[in-house]
Amino acid sequence: MMAVYEATATAPVNIACIKYWGKRDTKLILPVNSSLSVTLNQDDLCATTTARADLAFERDRLWLNNKEEEIKAGGRLATCIAGMRSLRREFEKTDNSLPKIAEYHVHIASKNNFPTAAGLASSAAGFAALVSALAQLYKLPTTPSELSIIARQGSGSACRSLFGGYVAWEMGTKDDGSDSRAVQVAGREHWPEIHALICVVSDIKKGTSSTSGMQRTVETSPLLQHRTSNIVPERMTAISKAIKERDFPTFAQLTMADSNQFHAVCLDTEPPIFYMNDVSRAIIATIVEYNRAAVAAGGEVKAAYTYDAGPNAVIYTLKENVKEIIELVSHYLPHAVPFKDAYGLFAGTQPVGRLPAGFNEAVAKKFEAGAVKNLIHTSVGDGPQVLGPDQSLLDTKGQPL
Amino acid sequence: MMAVYEATATAPVNIACIKYWGKRDTKLILPVNSSLSVTLNQDDLCATTTARADLAFERDRLWLNNKEEEIKAGGRLATCIAGMRSLRREFEKTDNSLPKIAEYHVHIASKNNFPTAAGLASSAAGFAALVSALAQLYKLPTTPSELSIIARQGSGSACRSLFGGYVAWEMGTKDDGSDSRAVQVAGREHWPEIHALICVVSDIKKGTSSTSGMQRTVETSPLLQHRTSNIVPERMTAISKAIKERDFPTFAQLTMADSNQFHAVCLDTEPPIFYMNDVSRAIIATIVEYNRAAVAAGGEVKAAYTYDAGPNAVIYTLKENVKEIIELVSHYLPHAVPFKDAYGLFAGTQPVGRLPAGFNEAVAKKFEAGAVKNLIHTSVGDGPQVLGPDQSLLDTKGQPL
Repeated sequence: MMAVYEATATAPVNIACIKYWGKRDTKLILPVNSSLSVTLNQDDLCATTTARADLAFERDRLWLNNKEEEIKAGGRLATCIAGMRSLRREFEKTDNSLPKIAEYHVHIASKNNFPTAAGLASSAAGFAALVSALAQLYKLPTTPSELSIIARQGSGSACRSLFGGYVAWEMGTKDDGSDSRAVQVAGREHWPEIHALICVVSDIKKGTSSTSGMQRTVETSPLLQHRTSNIVPERMTAISKAIKERDFPTFAQLTMADSNQFHAVCLDTEPPIFYMNDVSRAIIATIVEYNRAAVAAGGEVKAAYTYDAGPNAVIYTLKENVKEIIELVSHYLPHAVPFKDAYGLFAGTQPVGRLPAGFNEAVAKKFEAGAVKNLIHTSVGDGPQVLGPDQSLLDTKGQPL
Repeated sequence: MMAVYEATATAPVNIACIKYWGKRDTKLILPVNSSLSVTLNQDDLCATTTARADLAFERDRLWLNNKEEEIKAGGRLATCIAGMRSLRREFEKTDNSLPKIAEYHVHIASKNNFPTAAGLASSAAGFAALVSALAQLYKLPTTPSELSIIARQGSGSACRSLFGGYVAWEMGTKDDGSDSRAVQVAGREHWPEIHALICVVSDIKKGTSSTSGMQRTVETSPLLQHRTSNIVPERMTAISKAIKERDFPTFAQLTMADSNQFHAVCLDTEPPIFYMNDVSRAIIATIVEYNRAAVAAGGEVKAAYTYDAGPNAVIYTLKENVKEIIELVSHYLPHAVPFKDAYGLFAGTQPVGRLPAGFNEAVAKKFEAGAVKNLIHTSVGDGPQVLGPDQSLLDTKGQPL
């Protein structure tokens, strides 16, 4: 019987506070600016990937949520698999006792623990889980930063999913992309109180894909270069400091400002790109009012909204405010499905839409149930994890389970 | 019997192609960048103002649409009236035979030929009509540019309503604002084929006023200064050239780009300002597709959208395309009220929502009737006009008729 070479790993979703928008090299996926994100808890959102190498496999194959995906020559999947295989080959050269599994074909199965229909960018978690599973399969002595360089070539923001906690993607300056990688600014345990609420917003039409949208911005927005050269570098320094000092108001202010500016350069694109809709706008208005009321009452800014390339809101806040914000969001955006109370805040009951004291209800209108399809409560989390063989997604024949 | 000193004048609405957003002096209303607009036809949209000076009047009074407005000391109305009175006083010093009517109080009545509920900025036309009526009352030997300096202090964009056709507001550099004035780039007759469709969009909540909104942008947007210093000057030169050469595609491209950038800096403001809503976005999508289809068919860009500080769209196009665009807009945004066919395009019938050949219907969804409250067809027009005494808005006692 031949030896079986297999590993299973999970990787998290990350949501950027300082946004990645625009590539200086589209093939290597090198960005026009650095970015920074919070890694989300894998208990709530993660991708799981099993990779197996077997002499008997006839070609590389990959299944995503049990559906086979074509591994196109020169495509992003092929690039990541080739990158990992190349690291294994180099590694085998250093130690003759290592089995020559770099020459085997691989079968890979991946799935998400959240519905793809949630509209959450699953590619970041997916590519991070892919390189993590392959790194484990190949027993590579690589660091997460080294792996992030390969994951980056699958999906830019995937590089930030190689770490838990608070993660910077340093844009780098080299043409070959060897210094365009993720680094951890702080671990989850440094500031575990950061929680996130994801408001999955219904949208009628499919928006512009981020890949094509960001290149249109690079080509046509007169404001983008000013953003990347003059604004983002200062924001990266300032938000890293805020994270290190656990300064939530500064973290929140920078997060909101950078979400706004990302959408501003989208609007400054020709033709303009709109990702936020009237529901997104209403969520912004309620968070602005929530913070205003908190500050007016002698407190501090308590929440930050951020939007990626779609209408979904992610609201960052401290653990102590989550229940209040779930009530607030529920007031304007009644749930279409019951709220899944993963952190036990409501003791078996559902939010009723209570507004905080001193809150001006008129800042937004109430929408009909279903304008927000789903509300997901999560928190800052750890980086990729290796699972045991009992968690494999492949059967004995190398087919998805 | 004492002599009666009275004059009546009309002034037009103008809609900017290069947007005014941000003041460097809030009292004198000096802008952070130059701007450029098209003056609209007064047959469709205008303000009419009668000004009378009478020794018997006890104080300055003003009625807007028959409702008396307080003339607050130091306020914008008082500033404009004082500015005009001061010019009259200087003028009286030059010629002893002139009656000393600068010392008389004035009664002023003003009205618009379009509903205020239309959501169109009526203050530009209103202040331009005010200074025009006073200039006529006082028989001042002033030029429209000189008057524009006073109108500017009532409402910044009012200065551009002192001219017909295509009008630049030169930002000026002097601290006293004496060089921040309107100049005509070209008269209506130079390019009379420019028509405009105003889509009056319903909005649930009152947006941020432009006065407070623009100051928030000046104080908080990191992108605004790059816009004002580096982008607008080039656009002013380019659009003036396009107007002189009657180059519609260039005129349209600059108009759309500058509308987008104005709304981009609003979004880059803290907290962000949104003026456009989902209906505004849908109109943009249809104009983008209309132009794409025209270019794909071997033609040129045929229409330009532009949005001021609200959700209403103004679509500039050449006369020959107006009917097609009315049909297009009607397809997605069925009328709540019958279309008023001021230019006789539909020969007594109503638009049926026909789409042009090669147009991709899926670019926007169809809204319910009433999402656009009203569709107004107008065209480039002339500057302020003086009316005869039979058009007076004041009765013999100096009360509004």
